[in-house]
Amino acid sequence: MQIIRHDPGKVLSGAVEANGFVFVAGQVADDLAQDIAGQTKQVLARIDALLSKAGIDKSKILWANVWVSDIRNREAMNAAWMAWADPKNLPARATVEAKLADPRMLVEIACVAAK
Amino acid sequence: MQIIRHDPGKVLSGAVEANGFVFVAGQVADDLAQDIAGQTKQVLARIDALLSKAGIDKSKILWANVWVSDIRNREAMNAAWMAWADPKNLPARATVEAKLADPRMLVEIACVAAK
Amino acid sequence: MQIIRHDPGKVLSGAVEANGFVFVAGQVADDLAQDIAGQTKQVLARIDALLSKAGIDKSKILWANVWVSDIRNREAMNAAWMAWADPKNLPARATVEAKLADPRMLVEIACVAAK
Repeated sequence: MQIIRHDPGKVLSGAVEANGFVFVAGQVADDLAQDIAGQTKQVLARIDALLSKAGIDKSKILWANVWVSDIRNREAMNAAWMAWADPKNLPARATVEAKLADPRMLVEIACVAAK
Repeated sequence: MQIIRHDPGKVLSGAVEANGFVFVAGQVADDLAQDIAGQTKQVLARIDALLSKAGIDKSKILWANVWVSDIRNREAMNAAWMAWADPKNLPARATVEAKLADPRMLVEIACVAAK
Repeated sequence: MQIIRHDPGKVLSGAVEANGFVFVAGQVADDLAQDIAGQTKQVLARIDALLSKAGIDKSKILWANVWVSDIRNREAMNAAWMAWADPKNLPARATVEAKLADPRMLVEIACVAAK
């Protein structure tokens, strides 16, 4: 059994592979001045990049956890999600409200994918 | 490696199977007029139904994440959970408070099971 | 496929093994009079103990979900986390704010490890 850790930082790794799965850390937008649509798009691009490092793509996502800082932003987040998601390969998902690390952060998404 | 997606909708799938695991999306009650006991019972029935589509049952649940809209409802949620759970096969679980998609939603549960 | 359940209680198991993974239930501190640093340390010690029952250690953690009752405690939680974590084997992680079961609980952590 081999564990591969991508983008290790001081506190956490960006993604970790083991036993046929890839666990992606909670991603937030780089540009926190953007609205929920823009931040969601950035978060999803970051997930794409991490999955790519593990040699897979979004069609392999099994599960996602979405946190929005204001649940009223859920529909706008969903619109950006649907513009990105592979409609033939939609993951199971849970979306709840939570305050995030920075008050300007509107959305954070973590996921698990198959490899 | 085969990925099987149950109950795909426009945004997410109800449950996704891969590599010996089943990931069940966050489930909420159908009848949001019910109290926490009634909503929890409905949520757990929906989980039963999704696990059944994957050919397994609640005895195979490994992990659950429970979100209650008011943490003071935790005991009443637990009572409904214990009435349903297989006492010989209790999953690991985390329960925290979170605002859910609709203000009438009192509980949401997601889980991971073995297949 | 064998499922092994550690520390089963009335509501949940402390950790569950299956298919090469160990799922650890959300852990909270025993001494709720402690501050965020002390509570985080206790939570991490409890995770160490549960992983040990499954025959592994923190170097095998793939994913962690951290809930802090006040997101402003995130840096102090991170300091305790970094003092504990294996810097060569950092998990993917998501940290969000959530009210926990008892108002004195400042942090709860759940994780998934490889076995």
